[in-house]
Amino acid sequence: MNERDVSNRAGYKVGVRDHFMIAHSFRGEVFGPAQKLHGATYVVDVEFRRADLDPDGIVVDIGRACDVLKATLGALNYQNLDELPEFAGQNTTTEFLARTIFDRITAAVRTGKLGPGAFGIETVKVTLAESHIASGTYEGRLT
Amino acid sequence: MNERDVSNRAGYKVGVRDHFMIAHSFRGEVFGPAQKLHGATYVVDVEFRRADLDPDGIVVDIGRACDVLKATLGALNYQNLDELPEFAGQNTTTEFLARTIFDRITAAVRTGKLGPGAFGIETVKVTLAESHIASGTYEGRLT
Amino acid sequence: MNERDVSNRAGYKVGVRDHFMIAHSFRGEVFGPAQKLHGATYVVDVEFRRADLDPDGIVVDIGRACDVLKATLGALNYQNLDELPEFAGQNTTTEFLARTIFDRITAAVRTGKLGPGAFGIETVKVTLAESHIASGTYEGRLT
Amino acid sequence: MNERDVSNRAGYKVGVRDHFMIAHSFRGEVFGPAQKLHGATYVVDVEFRRADLDPDGIVVDIGRACDVLKATLGALNYQNLDELPEFAGQNTTTEFLARTIFDRITAAVRTGKLGPGAFGIETVKVTLAESHIASGTYEGRLT
Amino acid sequence: MNERDVSNRAGYKVGVRDHFMIAHSFRGEVFGPAQKLHGATYVVDVEFRRADLDPDGIVVDIGRACDVLKATLGALNYQNLDELPEFAGQNTTTEFLARTIFDRITAAVRTGKLGPGAFGIETVKVTLAESHIASGTYEGRLT
Amino acid sequence: MNERDVSNRAGYKVGVRDHFMIAHSFRGEVFGPAQKLHGATYVVDVEFRRADLDPDGIVVDIGRACDVLKATLGALNYQNLDELPEFAGQNTTTEFLARTIFDRITAAVRTGKLGPGAFGIETVKVTLAESHIASGTYEGRLT
Repeated sequence: MNERDVSNRAGYKVGVRDHFMIAHSFRGEVFGPAQKLHGATYVVDVEFRRADLDPDGIVVDIGRACDVLKATLGALNYQNLDELPEFAGQNTTTEFLARTIFDRITAAVRTGKLGPGAFGIETVKVTLAESHIASGTYEGRLT
Repeated sequence: MNERDVSNRAGYKVGVRDHFMIAHSFRGEVFGPAQKLHGATYVVDVEFRRADLDPDGIVVDIGRACDVLKATLGALNYQNLDELPEFAGQNTTTEFLARTIFDRITAAVRTGKLGPGAFGIETVKVTLAESHIASGTYEGRLT
Repeated sequence: MNERDVSNRAGYKVGVRDHFMIAHSFRGEVFGPAQKLHGATYVVDVEFRRADLDPDGIVVDIGRACDVLKATLGALNYQNLDELPEFAGQNTTTEFLARTIFDRITAAVRTGKLGPGAFGIETVKVTLAESHIASGTYEGRLT
Repeated sequence: MNERDVSNRAGYKVGVRDHFMIAHSFRGEVFGPAQKLHGATYVVDVEFRRADLDPDGIVVDIGRACDVLKATLGALNYQNLDELPEFAGQNTTTEFLARTIFDRITAAVRTGKLGPGAFGIETVKVTLAESHIASGTYEGRLT
Repeated sequence: MNERDVSNRAGYKVGVRDHFMIAHSFRGEVFGPAQKLHGATYVVDVEFRRADLDPDGIVVDIGRACDVLKATLGALNYQNLDELPEFAGQNTTTEFLARTIFDRITAAVRTGKLGPGAFGIETVKVTLAESHIASGTYEGRLT
Repeated sequence: MNERDVSNRAGYKVGVRDHFMIAHSFRGEVFGPAQKLHGATYVVDVEFRRADLDPDGIVVDIGRACDVLKATLGALNYQNLDELPEFAGQNTTTEFLARTIFDRITAAVRTGKLGPGAFGIETVKVTLAESHIASGTYEGRLT
């Protein structure tokens, strides 16, 4: 299996939800009026996937997963993303932010913030709903 | 009945939904981190209420109601509300924006933009969901 | 209180949900392309309201309310409403159908189909969502 | 206006959402299989209503409202309600629990836990969704 | 990789939502009362997936995706599907219609209607919710 | 393809939804307050997937799928899972229960309870939402 592949094995998932609210603007004609400074609420769903449950019978502790998600989104919440150095020169689109949150959540898993049982997690999927009709997603392996 | 009263008569309602995305900031300690420039997606539900149906058997034409709602939200969509003269010195909270949209929708009803049948509408309710867990509403008479 | 008034007393509500799927067409220019034979899924929410709970601590038995709602919608489900004699000459709009279901549900309450405890119900509200963005409602007293 | 009346004046609302998970059983034939020990997740929506906004332009601080709701539900979360003395001899139905939470939230408002601005709140509505198809509500004045 | 395979590579998705309303009937005993002429509202979710973002940082322009989805559904909206030659002899089930819309959306991608950046899209998933409790999906490669 | 793999071929899905309500408790420090007897409502989504439609143009009869799901959940509904012999010594977490329901639904498919056309189903996914912010899933092949 290529390191870019996500697992297609049978398995378990746990999903948790939270949200954050930001301002930003985009560069590029394709964005039309969204080139102006505007904002969004993103309702974020994170799914953790693994082939087998841990000895407690869980994919990951839901309480801890909620805490890590809240901390991850807290670093973005109530920010103007145009002013954050980490996003300089980057369009902070919904799908790009899904990848950003994926990178931060998977780093938290690897450093043990979801507990030792969570090292069995294989793939993570992050979906940001920007409204009742549009969303962006990134899914990848926990390398 | 006082002009500030909303009807409590039996009756009919039609509801329509759309959304808009803006940037803004608040003034006042109560707002904590929301005093910084941030943003929101507002999913907007508008309900039109009247005691009886018109001769076509409707409260209001749903297609026209959607068009008027889209036009109303279009004037706010992709804006930084802090820069709009109409909101100078005003916290554009969710509940305040619900009232703003109520005022604009009811003005559109009164000037015939929803058709002559819509003159029978008695009360209008506008709800803005700012996330999956929080919302603001204004409801009033169509004076 | 006028018989057309709905209560504005403090009180309790129970809500239940089900759905039905029909074909129909409308007469009148206001309906545009909906003058053609088309159809809809209606997701129906019924709310029963009363000032005080019955001796069992309920507004109405939720199981019985679900059964009565299913039976009521069953008479409409999978029908072409244009061919039902009861709707001859009538536009079966979302708000009109909300009233139709209100009339049938309240008749069921009065004839004891929701049990003797349900005689304490004062008002009923019926909402039909025809899509994720549009709905129609009728609310009235249980006379 | 009778003290049992809820306002029908034009006005503003703010709504917040959280949830809790409990075990309980009911007494009474009407409950059928729910007479056995079982449980429920209740997704709770609380709406605060008032005629006018406070000087900050809000009905109530959404953050504080979320905190008070979480604290209120925290006293019930992960409990077997059959064992709580406060509910002895009482069927803890969805609509009864809506009233319980209403009483606790309104007490919190009166004792200033939502801030001095919240003394202007006139009515509160509490809805508990026990599933995707059933809910219970209590609405009353903040006396 | 077989041409019938969908990618299981890590990657990005964008999803958009709209709806349409039709009449139809089914042939076959398995359909029971749905053999009669009835109808449905379909709430449609389309997901576009690709391994990497385009130079603007997007999977596809959400505005353009919404326009193409609306145009695609517009050809079916307010129709009696039993009378459309393209569906002669075919049960227009929810899952069949998901495939129909998949075929039309992917044709629009291939002919450039979502812009040149959209040529990088690898798979498309189309889900039609026919009610709050039932849905049909087709997912395939953009060949 | 390994027997633990789920298909990544292009294909069709049908999804159906129902719910059940139970009491239970967990063993293990990771569960914190959930070690006490509490309960949950689980809203259950089951997706059936196959590469091609059957001769009637369906993945599976939605009516039959709803009936099998209701019967499967009926065996758990209104139970205290701590007292069921089949779960002795097992934490009945959301993800574990998703697997339990997967096993029972796929057994029903194999024994013909969804009809002979359903033998073409390749994979099944079961998701249990325990609240508006958390869920558990099991997905596997129909071996």
